Amino acid sequence: MKIIIDVMGGDNAPHSNIKGAIDSLKENNINIILVGPKDIIEEELSTLDYQKDKVEIIDAKERIENDDEPTQAIRRKKDSSMVVGLNALADGLGDGFISAGNTGALLAGSILIIKRLEDIDRAAITVLYPTIKGMSLLIDAGANMDSKPEYLKQFAIMGYIYTKEVLGKNNPTVGLINVGSEKTKGNILCKETYKLLELENINFIGNIEGRDLPFGASDVMVCDGFVGNVVLKVTEGVAESLFSMLKKEFTSSTKSKLGALMLKNELNNLKKMLDYREYGGAPLLGVKKPIVKAHGSSDDYAIKNAISQLISYIDKDVIKIIESRLQ
Amino acid sequence: MKIIIDVMGGDNAPHSNIKGAIDSLKENNINIILVGPKDIIEEELSTLDYQKDKVEIIDAKERIENDDEPTQAIRRKKDSSMVVGLNALADGLGDGFISAGNTGALLAGSILIIKRLEDIDRAAITVLYPTIKGMSLLIDAGANMDSKPEYLKQFAIMGYIYTKEVLGKNNPTVGLINVGSEKTKGNILCKETYKLLELENINFIGNIEGRDLPFGASDVMVCDGFVGNVVLKVTEGVAESLFSMLKKEFTSSTKSKLGALMLKNELNNLKKMLDYREYGGAPLLGVKKPIVKAHGSSDDYAIKNAISQLISYIDKDVIKIIESRLQ
Repeated sequence: MKIIIDVMGGDNAPHSNIKGAIDSLKENNINIILVGPKDIIEEELSTLDYQKDKVEIIDAKERIENDDEPTQAIRRKKDSSMVVGLNALADGLGDGFISAGNTGALLAGSILIIKRLEDIDRAAITVLYPTIKGMSLLIDAGANMDSKPEYLKQFAIMGYIYTKEVLGKNNPTVGLINVGSEKTKGNILCKETYKLLELENINFIGNIEGRDLPFGASDVMVCDGFVGNVVLKVTEGVAESLFSMLKKEFTSSTKSKLGALMLKNELNNLKKMLDYREYGGAPLLGVKKPIVKAHGSSDDYAIKNAISQLISYIDKDVIKIIESRLQ
Repeated sequence: MKIIIDVMGGDNAPHSNIKGAIDSLKENNINIILVGPKDIIEEELSTLDYQKDKVEIIDAKERIENDDEPTQAIRRKKDSSMVVGLNALADGLGDGFISAGNTGALLAGSILIIKRLEDIDRAAITVLYPTIKGMSLLIDAGANMDSKPEYLKQFAIMGYIYTKEVLGKNNPTVGLINVGSEKTKGNILCKETYKLLELENINFIGNIEGRDLPFGASDVMVCDGFVGNVVLKVTEGVAESLFSMLKKEFTSSTKSKLGALMLKNELNNLKKMLDYREYGGAPLLGVKKPIVKAHGSSDDYAIKNAISQLISYIDKDVIKIIESRLQ
């Protein structure tokens, strides 16, 4: 198995991407292709200890930035690590691709270069959403605005298969994000989607409400990309604002500082529960080859874990299962 | 000024509703009408000290429950405290109405009995949303699924006027909840709404993202009712789940319990910042008379504060300002 890595994507690129990729060699029987500026990669590699014949480099001089307009970036930055990497995947030089770069560009590039599966109307971005029961898969986390019921049905099926095969949950539950639990609740999109999901063999448990999401309402949480993006960002914002208020309160006096010091382990445990690093990445679903998006702030540990997810994504032949299910 | 109070709505009814209403008499020069079962109200009142000539009772034997289907409840429970109270408002027996009961029923009842303003297409539910800069007004918090750009424009104008007049913010900022800050981002509804809001004289600051809401991105946060409901419930869920995780961690050992004890004041401060009780209620906007929805778990303190908001809503003649603005 050969994994293609976008060396220049993400806040800690290229160092963490290269270090994480090399670390993954120690745990998995794989080969890797590092895509990015050859001189930079060689310099990073010179400081690391690894099996030389397992690592290839493909030179790519440009870099897609986080604020680049996605489709334009893919069309214009032909020599970027992301575009060159996706082309390498399309050409069959490797079995899967991982990037921590611009999510919109990765989506646009995947659709333009790798192409959508034939029976899929829209590709979706997923995210592993932290709950008190562990991670749930949120699909669509922001790829498609103005979705149709049929898209959401396909997202649900893809999410179910991925969660079962790669995340290893036996018969995962699928919930539709809505404003109430009753079948008749919500907007037209939700009402129509509900009817479609009921007919599918995907352990659909009905509507799930915003309040229940952080409590692990379902293993797969299905929604339109606009709603998914809002859910994800509100969750991040609320958690961040609470932590910042906690910090402010906990440093307000000598006594509170001492109290906070005594709770250091517990506060760290809490942060760890919300930590994306343990999971590393989430798949793009609906395209013809395995692609994993690693978190933008990934360090080497997160990159290594994201590569593990990609390996499992490839290994379990998830795309073939999705194809045969949707035919 | 005479305030009509639904004595039977909310989790702590009738005790807290009556106690809160009586407490508000001490702070404001108002009269009140308590609507609910006469015997129960008289029994509660017999334990309280108040000026008798300022309190009237209107008997209503039924009660709308939280799980009643809203429109059916309004149509069938003609003798409920909510319906009788709304009828009293329609008949001009009082100047404003407050209820802590079933939100959907209050909305349906307001539209059916009080009626929408002539130049308003849809009435909206608002919520005071806690941010680190204080409360922001979220509109629409769940009344209208599948909104049109014109509705959102009207919500923005009503929210701006209410925030300025009643919440006392000078030239409050208005933001549109969206998935990105650029004008071209989002679904069709947001793109079209953006164009309309730009033309209004309401201090529109553009799109605001989910992540920034808890940090006080704007004083008025405008969105479709589906999105607003999801935002609100996800916020509650994330805050609750974090507090429950904190609690679990902080009681995991003797040392952590001691640490948490030392932080008791600080943890209470934090909870207070998120406390709806200080604000008590949020207005229904778009109907012909002032109506305030108090939080379902309101205690007497919250009810008293919600009545203060209603007094200001009436006093500032917000509805007349909205009418003249939208003509």
